[in-house]
Amino acid sequence: MSTHATKQDPDVLSARLERASEAAARAGIDALLISPGSDLRYLVGAGGESFERLSCLVLPAAGRDAAPALVVPKLEELGYADVPADRLGIDMVTWVDGENPHGIVTDLVHRDGAPGRVAVADVMPALHTIPLRDAMPGVEQVLAGPVLRELRMRKDSAEIEALRRAGAAIDRVHARMGEFLKVGRTEAEVGADIGEAIVAEGHLEAEFIIVGSGPNGASPHHALSDRVIQAGDVVVVDIGGPLPNGYNSDCTRTYSLGEPARPDVRETYAILQSAQRAAVDAVRPGATPATIDAAAREPIAAAGFGEYFVHRTGHGIGLDVHEEPYVMGGNELTLEPGVAFSIEPGIYQQGHWGARIEDIVVVTDDGVESLNNQPHELVVLPA
Amino acid sequence: MSTHATKQDPDVLSARLERASEAAARAGIDALLISPGSDLRYLVGAGGESFERLSCLVLPAAGRDAAPALVVPKLEELGYADVPADRLGIDMVTWVDGENPHGIVTDLVHRDGAPGRVAVADVMPALHTIPLRDAMPGVEQVLAGPVLRELRMRKDSAEIEALRRAGAAIDRVHARMGEFLKVGRTEAEVGADIGEAIVAEGHLEAEFIIVGSGPNGASPHHALSDRVIQAGDVVVVDIGGPLPNGYNSDCTRTYSLGEPARPDVRETYAILQSAQRAAVDAVRPGATPATIDAAAREPIAAAGFGEYFVHRTGHGIGLDVHEEPYVMGGNELTLEPGVAFSIEPGIYQQGHWGARIEDIVVVTDDGVESLNNQPHELVVLPA
Repeated sequence: MSTHATKQDPDVLSARLERASEAAARAGIDALLISPGSDLRYLVGAGGESFERLSCLVLPAAGRDAAPALVVPKLEELGYADVPADRLGIDMVTWVDGENPHGIVTDLVHRDGAPGRVAVADVMPALHTIPLRDAMPGVEQVLAGPVLRELRMRKDSAEIEALRRAGAAIDRVHARMGEFLKVGRTEAEVGADIGEAIVAEGHLEAEFIIVGSGPNGASPHHALSDRVIQAGDVVVVDIGGPLPNGYNSDCTRTYSLGEPARPDVRETYAILQSAQRAAVDAVRPGATPATIDAAAREPIAAAGFGEYFVHRTGHGIGLDVHEEPYVMGGNELTLEPGVAFSIEPGIYQQGHWGARIEDIVVVTDDGVESLNNQPHELVVLPA
Repeated sequence: MSTHATKQDPDVLSARLERASEAAARAGIDALLISPGSDLRYLVGAGGESFERLSCLVLPAAGRDAAPALVVPKLEELGYADVPADRLGIDMVTWVDGENPHGIVTDLVHRDGAPGRVAVADVMPALHTIPLRDAMPGVEQVLAGPVLRELRMRKDSAEIEALRRAGAAIDRVHARMGEFLKVGRTEAEVGADIGEAIVAEGHLEAEFIIVGSGPNGASPHHALSDRVIQAGDVVVVDIGGPLPNGYNSDCTRTYSLGEPARPDVRETYAILQSAQRAAVDAVRPGATPATIDAAAREPIAAAGFGEYFVHRTGHGIGLDVHEEPYVMGGNELTLEPGVAFSIEPGIYQQGHWGARIEDIVVVTDDGVESLNNQPHELVVLPA
């Protein structure tokens, strides 16, 4: 039930379609084939969740004659009712069970001459990727992600405002954590309450809820368990989800139930906090994800905990919780104003405890804006 | 949050892996490459939801020497902790950010000689399908669905029992519909209550909730809206979701708030009910989906409503809500005991009202068992 109902400004969508078709042309791609997912939503403001029945935007590259076309199953046509097809110059093409949608897309791609290379959405399932490839023998099939990520990484002001609202909504959930996170409750019980709060604070749904208590905090992708939270536990709470506008929140804070039972917590946490701060401070136009990753990693490594920081420093965020750019060594992208991503270093003491601090930040004209603003200190709740 | 925690019997999984590798060999496929989704869950009893980080079961065809391998990101290893890898003879292979998982899978596929043809899971996103293809030039890449559907269509007794429990759970929700569906409430309000009831009656989540009131009932894939339900409305309620065992429910009943306001409802509904009954009665070993589709369609067409029955008669169900076999003209599959699917004809009077009746049925040794057993009559609730 994750149909998103917010209508998009047709002028914004029109500009995105134009930039996408120009980017495709620059990449030597004749057409983009975009199936439902956040790429489709970004381009036309809607997108079903069809799996076995193909829906697909056929977007010719700039310089080709044909108009964009949106191929949808007749049965799912209503799900695209909000697409301002006339304003966007998109031909709506419906098909019914028994017709061959891959053939329809192939014909559309060939309207203005045989293509040499088409790009499919990264999310397109093999169920459609492979029949489309087989329907266009001799046409090179590549991923559309590299073309679209250039657009989607650079958020416009409306997108940044949407992410700002998402950040404020999840901050409100963290601010209420003392209501949920209590000694004697299981992670699952706490998680259920957090899930309700995520929705109550304005999200469409709780997409992920990590409550990693005690040793579970040392597993970065632990979700919820029946472990009962104990006095002295350190607890990693990493939560988020989409707002009705489609943009996602994602924020981690680390809590302690009373003073931490383990003696190494306070000192280790202070190192983590300074590392997270250093990485945020490294964000500015012209910086690279690699330099930000290094800024987070350096203080942790200097303290001898380098091997306990087992994941990348962050990920882009927008219509997807995880998108480009990934904040990791080797990513030499030059950051520009409008790029949004997480900064979330962690230190994980396997079998004992873990901690992580995560904010969403956006590159501004002269530095950085943090979209999460709850305190970064270890939050001590009553034991 | 749809991690499924039910452990599977290792002997059942072992037999499934063996049958899958034999079916692959028969299809001239050297290896199955299965990314997270219900195929993976069917074969190993678990499956993450990773998108950008590849997880993939590499299952060599019968006759090849290599053992199966399960490639998972180190970060997500815990999500596969319930896989009885030792018992199943599966090599667990983890990778970390910076490594090339497509290269790792390619090396595994080549362990026992160069393959000629590999099959990827239908759900595998292009983000992995295309790099795997590019990493194995000269190897034909096909869909695994046709191989696996032969196995997954024929449910074993434990699967049928799981579907039976799912059917009973959603029947209990329909039995309570009078609590939720009332004049003056919006479809969305009714849907929210139904969603809670779906969970309360034993489902993991409410995967879909259609409350199509009045004219909205004429759109088969309408979900929920802010339309206020009125006295005399006919309302299509199509609901379901997975149980913790992973198997899905899916059941539609049509309600009326007091006597239907439109004079054609009673007569039209009677035709629909007889059509649904006729289709269920046509189910037996040796029948085909096409004959069952025809059995549903014939009485509706005879009454002059053929063009208002705009979709296929049904779909298979199991770990997926929609899976093979599809109950439609042209599907000449010979049905065998254990095959489970929906029978859900509908009649849609565009702009006015619609009705649909849906049961999940399973082919038995000598006929059919219906897994949904609420009354099939138009259910009149107080106006």
